[in-house]
Amino acid sequence: MNYKMMGRLDALILAVEAVFMLPAFLISLFRGEQGAAQSFLVSMGIILAIAGILALLSRNAKRDFYAREGLICVGTSWLLMSLLGCLPLVFSGAVPNYIDALFEMVSGFTTTGSSIIPDLDVIPKGIIYWRSFSNWLGGMGVLVFLLAIVPVSGRSEGFTMHLLRAESPGPDVGKLVPRMRETAAVLYLSYLALSVINLIFLLVGGMPVFDAVCTMFSTAGTGGFGIYNDSFAGFSPYIQIVTTVFMLLFGINFSCYYLILLRKFRSVFRDEELRLYVGIVIASILLIAWNVYSLYGNLADTLRHSAFQVSSIITTTGFMTTDFDLWPTFSKAILLFLMAIGACAGSTGGGLKCARLLLLMKSLRRNVSQILRPKKVKVIRVNDKAIDERIIANTGAYFFVYVAIMVVSFFIVSLDGFSITTSFSAVLSALNNIGPGLDAAGPTCNFSEFGIASKLVLIVDMLAGRLEIFPILVLFLPHAWKRG
Amino acid sequence: MNYKMMGRLDALILAVEAVFMLPAFLISLFRGEQGAAQSFLVSMGIILAIAGILALLSRNAKRDFYAREGLICVGTSWLLMSLLGCLPLVFSGAVPNYIDALFEMVSGFTTTGSSIIPDLDVIPKGIIYWRSFSNWLGGMGVLVFLLAIVPVSGRSEGFTMHLLRAESPGPDVGKLVPRMRETAAVLYLSYLALSVINLIFLLVGGMPVFDAVCTMFSTAGTGGFGIYNDSFAGFSPYIQIVTTVFMLLFGINFSCYYLILLRKFRSVFRDEELRLYVGIVIASILLIAWNVYSLYGNLADTLRHSAFQVSSIITTTGFMTTDFDLWPTFSKAILLFLMAIGACAGSTGGGLKCARLLLLMKSLRRNVSQILRPKKVKVIRVNDKAIDERIIANTGAYFFVYVAIMVVSFFIVSLDGFSITTSFSAVLSALNNIGPGLDAAGPTCNFSEFGIASKLVLIVDMLAGRLEIFPILVLFLPHAWKRG
Repeated sequence: MNYKMMGRLDALILAVEAVFMLPAFLISLFRGEQGAAQSFLVSMGIILAIAGILALLSRNAKRDFYAREGLICVGTSWLLMSLLGCLPLVFSGAVPNYIDALFEMVSGFTTTGSSIIPDLDVIPKGIIYWRSFSNWLGGMGVLVFLLAIVPVSGRSEGFTMHLLRAESPGPDVGKLVPRMRETAAVLYLSYLALSVINLIFLLVGGMPVFDAVCTMFSTAGTGGFGIYNDSFAGFSPYIQIVTTVFMLLFGINFSCYYLILLRKFRSVFRDEELRLYVGIVIASILLIAWNVYSLYGNLADTLRHSAFQVSSIITTTGFMTTDFDLWPTFSKAILLFLMAIGACAGSTGGGLKCARLLLLMKSLRRNVSQILRPKKVKVIRVNDKAIDERIIANTGAYFFVYVAIMVVSFFIVSLDGFSITTSFSAVLSALNNIGPGLDAAGPTCNFSEFGIASKLVLIVDMLAGRLEIFPILVLFLPHAWKRG
Repeated sequence: MNYKMMGRLDALILAVEAVFMLPAFLISLFRGEQGAAQSFLVSMGIILAIAGILALLSRNAKRDFYAREGLICVGTSWLLMSLLGCLPLVFSGAVPNYIDALFEMVSGFTTTGSSIIPDLDVIPKGIIYWRSFSNWLGGMGVLVFLLAIVPVSGRSEGFTMHLLRAESPGPDVGKLVPRMRETAAVLYLSYLALSVINLIFLLVGGMPVFDAVCTMFSTAGTGGFGIYNDSFAGFSPYIQIVTTVFMLLFGINFSCYYLILLRKFRSVFRDEELRLYVGIVIASILLIAWNVYSLYGNLADTLRHSAFQVSSIITTTGFMTTDFDLWPTFSKAILLFLMAIGACAGSTGGGLKCARLLLLMKSLRRNVSQILRPKKVKVIRVNDKAIDERIIANTGAYFFVYVAIMVVSFFIVSLDGFSITTSFSAVLSALNNIGPGLDAAGPTCNFSEFGIASKLVLIVDMLAGRLEIFPILVLFLPHAWKRG
């Protein structure tokens, strides 16, 4: 185990985090939020000090770096970032309880968007900015950022690949361009470009700059931290429609945007995952619109609310324009299903991912035909490419561990005595980085009512969901930490 | 496709069904239940007539018989048995609506035990007997019975194997003895012997003969049709404890009993599935007892209720001594988990089966260690035997299709507008052949309130659950029916 290389990376990530805190500090400073400004300053000091110590301890790192190191490094760095990133919330008194602040921060970085803050109106703007920015940073992943931007000496192609694989969502991370580092750069540039376009659309709609920036952060990261207590209900239909479209765009595999830049429109149009995603979105919007039509009475409002909610849930953003907990059971059932599926692989969205659903459906079809005709050998293809049997086996295992974590978490959260729907949807929402659940975890409620044990479980679930389980799972396995 | 051989088998099965109706007819006759007796007589006539026509149409059957034929044959025979077996319920006026009667009969044969009859006290005893007997017959499977007892000319080893595989629960049906036919006989004899012992224990407890026979039927088949409106709540603690033990015994893989007869105690003791099953049962009993202690106030009652309910749910029987819908959320969460897991493979219980859970857990462990050390090749072993990779892949696919059927059924049932817990637990209960769910599908309620679409979906789910999905799934696949 190459502890030193991991220490070096963690030090770098913490330094990046401290630098990213600077705008939040400046916002608080210029808005005259004394307490918040001071707490950002102190937090930056603490984070930089810890980064310095880590860097000192991990001089002369060896170069060998394997899948195991990649997984553990991603797990520890996200944990560290959250443990320290929530300090300003505690120091400023916005969220005085440390566990609550950690919950809020993990919810931010993992792009979940569940909040334990009962009233956003009394929170300093610097803190609001930092929360929303955590959605944006967590969306694409801080390690991807690091790999794309910061030169790390002594890193090999394998090093970059293992880190990128461990942090990026989806069953398989393809190389867009021959070198992994350039892949990371292409991903981040697309992310940046799309974010800027989103911001422009919001500004055109007359949104104040601060609101627009924060809203863009949470939309782009598909995080869902609101800046007002009623989330999106108070915004104009224009803003709601713009956000509906951009949530869906950020839920698409970013390699599609790269293909568009290369003018390979055919490949994009034929992408099987994209087709499945679009198909699910359209079917869900129509089914829910049919089911809730009587609540709104006119087609335009019905479609707007239905489309916004479907986009918000399938991309695991978690914004809302209406209290969908009041919708009929059928619509809620569809939303629960969308919560579990999630967006496309290689996007900023969470969940199981459409790519995995596609693989599972294809392996099921093969299975049925093998039961009928046992002697036929069939290869599973996605977009005309044969898929490695190991990825198929991994996808099956992933699906099972995903359900297993859900069951165990559900047990622990159910000890709080909330209804089954509350407990189950809270876990589903955390594990898929959505934000709101149903019932007492519904859109108009927040998570402050849960007990400490439940909050800790939900924190682990959010991290496991964002990092696709294994980087967090290995942290709990003693033999993963062994040398050699 | 060998349609003629399938027709011959279906004819035989219907004839067996008509013969098994005879005791029910006699009971109604001697109890002076004129209407019921007549309806049994008419039903037997209709069933035998249809069997005769099928037999006539399928003379000169060829001998070739493959996995595909086995699956479809099992699917169609269970469907036919249910479609015709419910006729006495309709004719006698006990359940005048045909869809309701079909629901009740499918619930019986699949050993689910969900009922749409609001008041059992007004139902003729002959009908009560027939319902309970359907639990017993469905428990081990009518085709296994046929294979064990009735000589079918021109049947090969492969023929027997394909049928036994398609009807018997579990990821892999091992041969207990070299010839498949003898395996079927061993299974049925164990089933019969254990049933008789159960009956004796009930009679010793002072239960009237009719009640004891019917209760034994539903216990042995892990079906759960009660004979009184309050299920087991009115029975003495002795009867409750005896039933707790026997439900658990009928949930064990029957090959264990065969090993005990051969005095191979060590193999039984070391059986990994059995250990998992016993472990889950003990842990669940203790956790629930701890959680509900305050409701009962003394340890004996708490443990009795907890043990009864855990046994009833994990073996998918569905009897109850207390309204567990009133238990705290944590206990209900555990029961929901037990509903999904179910009993051991090769038992009369339903659900996913402990053997599958074991395989999924082992393949997950392998997966994690492969992610950490990609170059190591590992074989999965159960009871020290290496497991064929194809069975592991099938188990993964089974788990996925199981969840997929649950999701689709949940959508349709949720259209009835019951709560999410009601809709979800009703589907879970049907698919795992348990009986009661939670909330409005809970132990004190019954399924008559659901709409026609929901009832049909639940009927398909019950059949899919009992036959482990594929024999029912292939009935919906057009290309499975093609010749060649």
